[in-house]
Amino acid sequence: MTSGASDEVRFARAALTRICEPASQGLAKLIARCGPVEALDRLCRDQPPKDIAGAVEGRRGDIRAQRDLDNIHALGGRLVCPEDDEWPVQLDQLVTVSHENDPVMPPVALWIRGLEDVSAVCARSVSIVGSRAASSYGTHVAGELAYGLADRGWTVVSGGAYGIDGSGHRAALAAGAPTVAVLASGVDRPYPLGHHALFDRIATEGLLISEWPPGCSPQRQRFLVRNRVIAALSGGTVVVEAAARSGARMTARRATELCRPLMAVPGPVTSAMSVGAHQLIRTGTATLVTSAAEVLDLVGQIGVDMAEPPRGPITARDALPPELAQVLEGVPARRAAPPDEIAVQAGVRLSDALRALSRLIGAGLVDEHGNGYRLTKAGRR
Amino acid sequence: MTSGASDEVRFARAALTRICEPASQGLAKLIARCGPVEALDRLCRDQPPKDIAGAVEGRRGDIRAQRDLDNIHALGGRLVCPEDDEWPVQLDQLVTVSHENDPVMPPVALWIRGLEDVSAVCARSVSIVGSRAASSYGTHVAGELAYGLADRGWTVVSGGAYGIDGSGHRAALAAGAPTVAVLASGVDRPYPLGHHALFDRIATEGLLISEWPPGCSPQRQRFLVRNRVIAALSGGTVVVEAAARSGARMTARRATELCRPLMAVPGPVTSAMSVGAHQLIRTGTATLVTSAAEVLDLVGQIGVDMAEPPRGPITARDALPPELAQVLEGVPARRAAPPDEIAVQAGVRLSDALRALSRLIGAGLVDEHGNGYRLTKAGRR
Repeated sequence: MTSGASDEVRFARAALTRICEPASQGLAKLIARCGPVEALDRLCRDQPPKDIAGAVEGRRGDIRAQRDLDNIHALGGRLVCPEDDEWPVQLDQLVTVSHENDPVMPPVALWIRGLEDVSAVCARSVSIVGSRAASSYGTHVAGELAYGLADRGWTVVSGGAYGIDGSGHRAALAAGAPTVAVLASGVDRPYPLGHHALFDRIATEGLLISEWPPGCSPQRQRFLVRNRVIAALSGGTVVVEAAARSGARMTARRATELCRPLMAVPGPVTSAMSVGAHQLIRTGTATLVTSAAEVLDLVGQIGVDMAEPPRGPITARDALPPELAQVLEGVPARRAAPPDEIAVQAGVRLSDALRALSRLIGAGLVDEHGNGYRLTKAGRR
Repeated sequence: MTSGASDEVRFARAALTRICEPASQGLAKLIARCGPVEALDRLCRDQPPKDIAGAVEGRRGDIRAQRDLDNIHALGGRLVCPEDDEWPVQLDQLVTVSHENDPVMPPVALWIRGLEDVSAVCARSVSIVGSRAASSYGTHVAGELAYGLADRGWTVVSGGAYGIDGSGHRAALAAGAPTVAVLASGVDRPYPLGHHALFDRIATEGLLISEWPPGCSPQRQRFLVRNRVIAALSGGTVVVEAAARSGARMTARRATELCRPLMAVPGPVTSAMSVGAHQLIRTGTATLVTSAAEVLDLVGQIGVDMAEPPRGPITARDALPPELAQVLEGVPARRAAPPDEIAVQAGVRLSDALRALSRLIGAGLVDEHGNGYRLTKAGRR
């Protein structure tokens, strides 16, 4: 199914995902220095490198990589490693923004359920993230955006949560497109349980992805760590509704650090659920978007997915040059006025008024009535 | 009442406001070259300067300045001229942004009803503008903003129209502050008629201002011309609701040209009434604002009127350093766990776990139970 990584490398990476929490700089450095097989070996010996010894002390005896790999295969899934062709290379960019005090290293490997090629399906993708306690406005807008993106051939990436995430996934599936849920628990126990049926559908028509091996529980901090993967997998991130404090803000921060377009959907200023989105826009961190077309304006390839600026209705009056518009203002609607009166009203010469009036008649905005002129129905509009 | 301009100058400026539409570059140049008295004289002679001859041809016989001045005095009003101490000098900045194809010259004079000094009352002022066909959301937000600004000692400037304008004026009056309505018709016939009682109150507690002499009707183009005065009088402009096509966009454009802060209030993306505001924010033309405090953040003097960034509730967990937060994740809520199990769950050394647990007990987030530890009520939050 997946090609590239040797069995030995895949086994080592599977084991590493269990004995160490992801995003560790120490582990990433160790793997970079000596490869995953040697890294695993060193961690399990008596003297692991000092900077990760504490993190693995309690777990390094817990090598059950073969059982984990057997489990994922039994679920119809697989472990995708950086050595595989299928690896989404955009994740490797995380290395460039990681700091010692804020490690955001790429995943060691990805546990995946689903048939799609993860690299291919995420090549044109947008993350839609936001509050779990979303308003009906928020879930409606998330659905509209996701449907619009999916309908244009884009993949919606999100976190599988209640609220905005769930709306995004569902609308993408409704548009007949694959969608990707990046989880903070094992792909065999996706969270929340209430999205059981949704996750089954995503596993069939899209992808369930996790950095943690089968069986792992969704610990609180794992959600924040997971958010860097959502930001890094997709071409851009849209925050639909987020309160002043919200996990979506972390995804937004990662997107910004990665120089991916960050977008936010406004809402009523009277809604606490839009405070986070408004803050992001107000500070210039996110660009305001109102539609899938505007999202693709920022994320899409130039010239392919450009949005038309919204326009109001155009009336005949709008097209008039200023000198005609000015004379038109002097023409009454309910009675006919002689040209000299119109010239005075409009503040122009009589000769200019007469010339303009004949052009306004031609445009259907004015008609003659006795010795005077008045507005037509089109002229009154 | 007003001092500065001589009777002769005031008479000339009064006459000029009737025989020529405002914002004319030709007229402004003529006044700058030879003063208002001589300018009036030249316009009324047989050979007025070519560039304004057309504009005044039909009207130059219409000298009724004394009657207009008598009328405004009978209304308890006055004509304020650039020569007067009371003249709001910020209007003169319009000269700097005027072009031949888009003349936006300062007013020749201002016809005013109300007791306040126009310069003093507009020294700390914000314009609130928007759609006449505002939604109930829009009028609510306009009212909240205006009340908040007025309550902090700021004057609300607007155009007296239905919808956003009216809400802004009313809320400012409700806060006991003066408000300024800049009209597109004579101050004796403010438009719309349905705001008759509101205009009477503004004339008593604030100011009604017009560039056109008493008796003038609100012609369509006068609203657009008038908008430059709203933008130039105030320290900044807030667009509350505006459709894709809206007169408020013109005020917004003038504010930008004048380098005054332009702000816009977001709304539901499902509302056509917010399309204009969203466009202004999306393109970076306007800054998103959600409250009076945020408006004053941009318009107010630095350090005097700064807004606090909105914050969510802070829990005890939020204040924890990362090493304690990590161990806390390993502590179960419903049963007590021994320290070695907690260390494995959290992925830390046993010694580190024990040290962290004693600090977590001190913080009231964990308690001991038999030989194990579990979360307290505060720890579960």
